[in-house]
Amino acid sequence: MKPVTLKQIAETLGISITTVSKALKDYPDVSKKTKALVKDLAQTLNYKPNSFAVNLRTRESKTIGLIVPEIVHHFFSSVIKGIISQAEKKGYLVIILQSNESYTLEKKQIELLLSKRVDGILISLANETANYNHLNSVLANETPLVMFDKIAKLVNCSKVLINDREAAYNATQHLINIGCKRIAHFRGPLLPQNSIDRFLGYKKALLDNDIAYDSTLVYILKDMSYDEGRFYAKKLIQDHKDVDGIFINTDLVAIGAIKEFNNLNIKVPEDISIIGFSNWFMSSVISPSLTTIDQPGFEIGKKAFKLLFREIKNKKNNKKINYKDVILETELVIRESTKTL
Amino acid sequence: MKPVTLKQIAETLGISITTVSKALKDYPDVSKKTKALVKDLAQTLNYKPNSFAVNLRTRESKTIGLIVPEIVHHFFSSVIKGIISQAEKKGYLVIILQSNESYTLEKKQIELLLSKRVDGILISLANETANYNHLNSVLANETPLVMFDKIAKLVNCSKVLINDREAAYNATQHLINIGCKRIAHFRGPLLPQNSIDRFLGYKKALLDNDIAYDSTLVYILKDMSYDEGRFYAKKLIQDHKDVDGIFINTDLVAIGAIKEFNNLNIKVPEDISIIGFSNWFMSSVISPSLTTIDQPGFEIGKKAFKLLFREIKNKKNNKKINYKDVILETELVIRESTKTL
Repeated sequence: MKPVTLKQIAETLGISITTVSKALKDYPDVSKKTKALVKDLAQTLNYKPNSFAVNLRTRESKTIGLIVPEIVHHFFSSVIKGIISQAEKKGYLVIILQSNESYTLEKKQIELLLSKRVDGILISLANETANYNHLNSVLANETPLVMFDKIAKLVNCSKVLINDREAAYNATQHLINIGCKRIAHFRGPLLPQNSIDRFLGYKKALLDNDIAYDSTLVYILKDMSYDEGRFYAKKLIQDHKDVDGIFINTDLVAIGAIKEFNNLNIKVPEDISIIGFSNWFMSSVISPSLTTIDQPGFEIGKKAFKLLFREIKNKKNNKKINYKDVILETELVIRESTKTL
Repeated sequence: MKPVTLKQIAETLGISITTVSKALKDYPDVSKKTKALVKDLAQTLNYKPNSFAVNLRTRESKTIGLIVPEIVHHFFSSVIKGIISQAEKKGYLVIILQSNESYTLEKKQIELLLSKRVDGILISLANETANYNHLNSVLANETPLVMFDKIAKLVNCSKVLINDREAAYNATQHLINIGCKRIAHFRGPLLPQNSIDRFLGYKKALLDNDIAYDSTLVYILKDMSYDEGRFYAKKLIQDHKDVDGIFINTDLVAIGAIKEFNNLNIKVPEDISIIGFSNWFMSSVISPSLTTIDQPGFEIGKKAFKLLFREIKNKKNNKKINYKDVILETELVIRESTKTL
């Protein structure tokens, strides 16, 4: 059975398409009797209004686009869940695309979403992204845009963030408080703002505590994977026998490092204390469980959608859009991978 | 800057909208000079064709819908990644909805996707779903539909599956091979076909090995969570002091059980051997690491999209659609949570 059209309903009842359309929308200039007839038949035939046609009139697709670097990732899947939970409430559908940390792909996906005339776009940038023309073209197109987590400071739009620098400072300060003197840092790639900020927070905590900054203790990771965590844990021990603490840019890497230290019979936290970042569920069930910074993914997703929705509404009502930076709170979660005070 | 329309391009160049449209599509009845003029201006003005309008002509939205019970879930996020990777290649966008295991929500989401005129729908059913009218209405609407993982046998459409019964049989047989005599099963809810099949595979392995089936050793779980794993591990030990093996419906629950046994000083695998199902990444990093059935989520996602794409193409070409059941291979991954042979 092909989808039923307005035309078929009109022909069946011997009335015009316009009358059918008006009847379904309860226009006052159609008689009650005709409305009842049309509605009954529409229901019997399982008629569904064509959303794309509706779209041409209201200029709304009730669909938003979301681009994330990676989906199989505890933090991003939590964010996605938060976004969808809010979008659902407001009757929006979410098209999800994965950039695989590639700038080229991200650029193509932005173009695709614009050509689909989504009502707005949410994005966390790929690690590779250093050029923001594609984002500026979203704004030039007057499509609301909200960035979260991996953002570009230079792009003038609303953002949902945490204070990465402060969180990293607190993590490093905690390592210092429990007595660590030689603290390494496994940082993310050079471009993303959040790995820059976490590195700066680490460095500032050292300097504020009169611990000399030693650049050889900082390792720049590429794909932030479990395997990289294992690799750099081993390398760190070869390079620096005296290291007693590590602040690691993300939990997955920290979990790899713990596994490697377990294998090498290096005791965590007795020999080395480790702090991760993000608070993946996994971090609470490994042995030893991981001390980390809790980054509220679900809340970030909810807030990002709310900001976007506000901008979509304001645009519709021809109101001025004021961009907003929303900073959500993080928390140090102390578990077994760090010595007790 | 509002999106540029064909009309604006036409007015700017003093030609008709039809000519602009034809020029952009390289129709032979438009002169090369006009084509060049139109294309140059379109590029300068950052003109984007309106996909929704295109849709009215081709009757294609190049968008598919995907409904999963849960996104923050290693298996489903792997499936999503597989689907998106294939969809990307074929130029399709994926709208992702989460049913939260609710039949009511799932039904509403199907209606929403149909009203959006998606080209096809991929679905893994909610645990609650026992009525299939909403799925049959997708088929009645001639919208291609492919089910995966949690499927309804009674719905006549293509499906991507694993042989749950055989995989569960193999897991239970392995517990028997390593010497377990009192084997419990933590099963999923009563409705989903996969938890029925895993239970039947468990039972058949016992009977084939002349081990009496004891229904008090089977626990029916509700939300398949980590916390449920902890709860039932404790309860099992209170109910049955002699249990020496457990086959558990999903890894997350098995990880909860291991954690609880660790806390209770019950040794895994010396006292109790445990086998999970699905092979979440987490299972390889916990202590002891979890023996499990590897369920190829990424491959399931890829295959599901490929089947759907074939049906979308066949429908477009007015070819008959033959439904297919694709069964993917699973594998027993032996790790530390089971005794060695």
